[in-house]
Amino acid sequence: MKEKSLTAKNSFSLETIKRLSLYLRNLKRLRDKGGSVISSDKITKFLNVTPEQFRKDLSYFGGFGKRGVGYGVERLIQEIEKILGVNKQRNIAIIGVGKLGSALLGFEGFSKFNLNITYAFDVGADKIGRRRDGILIEDVKNLKQVVKKNNIRIAIISTPPEVAQKITDELVSAGIRGILNFASIVLQVPAYVSVSNVDMACELESLIFFAKKKRSL
Amino acid sequence: MKEKSLTAKNSFSLETIKRLSLYLRNLKRLRDKGGSVISSDKITKFLNVTPEQFRKDLSYFGGFGKRGVGYGVERLIQEIEKILGVNKQRNIAIIGVGKLGSALLGFEGFSKFNLNITYAFDVGADKIGRRRDGILIEDVKNLKQVVKKNNIRIAIISTPPEVAQKITDELVSAGIRGILNFASIVLQVPAYVSVSNVDMACELESLIFFAKKKRSL
Repeated sequence: MKEKSLTAKNSFSLETIKRLSLYLRNLKRLRDKGGSVISSDKITKFLNVTPEQFRKDLSYFGGFGKRGVGYGVERLIQEIEKILGVNKQRNIAIIGVGKLGSALLGFEGFSKFNLNITYAFDVGADKIGRRRDGILIEDVKNLKQVVKKNNIRIAIISTPPEVAQKITDELVSAGIRGILNFASIVLQVPAYVSVSNVDMACELESLIFFAKKKRSL
Repeated sequence: MKEKSLTAKNSFSLETIKRLSLYLRNLKRLRDKGGSVISSDKITKFLNVTPEQFRKDLSYFGGFGKRGVGYGVERLIQEIEKILGVNKQRNIAIIGVGKLGSALLGFEGFSKFNLNITYAFDVGADKIGRRRDGILIEDVKNLKQVVKKNNIRIAIISTPPEVAQKITDELVSAGIRGILNFASIVLQVPAYVSVSNVDMACELESLIFFAKKKRSL
């Protein structure tokens, strides 16, 4: 199946892609339980997604199912992995191995889905040269050089916000194309670099807002 | 995947609320630097938000600025804190004090913004009764009782996905109104409970997708 390119006629959104990621996860669980052919009802169950939404999401990328027959689990996993670009191991670097960075380094939620952090950087003399979860912590001074040399394209920033932009500039100039940002700052990057922000305080604050709206807290 | 349960006349979105959270953070930084009256240009600088958007976001809640005069920093901070519902300390419980939970317990990004986790629960006999970052880790067996007794309304779930729904059911029946969920599972809750999912693997996968689309990875 050839991938369609992202053009104006493709009206799928970030939400579509995030749902693909959810489908993938559920499909893997179903496969582990021994499923081989499966209905869209079963794939979307417990995901708060309708089977119609599921079929629509897949239709952007070519369909893959047969009406009345269901979906081949293994093939669908492969297709979605190909669409997302997680069908191969990628080098992923993390910058900042504090509490949060350490938790991310050993985070099962990544490794279970083939998303392994392979390089780690920090400023701390007590950390540099040590291993955490099998990964050598390198001096952030060598960041650009290591990223370039190893063709790393994806990075996770878990530094204090004060240094996150400087780190970002170095990452971008070294060839990084995607940044998962945990620092509570809006990063400035060129248009060809993707940034995804995981802003936990912001999530918690908006959660409090919506909970307050629904019922007085 | 965040629920928007607002009435039709309120046309502001989840994104509006998240931006309020960003403004609040920037305003506090500016206050710390000694600012007292400030322009919308300055508040939105480095946030990738236009001053027009900022004024529009505030207009849903009543405005607060004077044309040509600017915004009183202290008053605006108070108003946004009141809107978000973070103008007072709230009891927040965390369930699951593994690697991620421990990192969240000590997360400066929370404490800096007055979002203090005040109760912690785990199943591990080696953890129960100990303190981490000053917080006593309690037996998850006592979850319902402690949540009820202390009127806790907001909870953070950082358990393995397998037990997250069971924990959620207990939380809901004990009176929790908002859940920040780090477990990679879609939680089923009644409509009056708000859930915000921080799904890091999902974020990383969609980041890889968009980075791949923009430039071949």
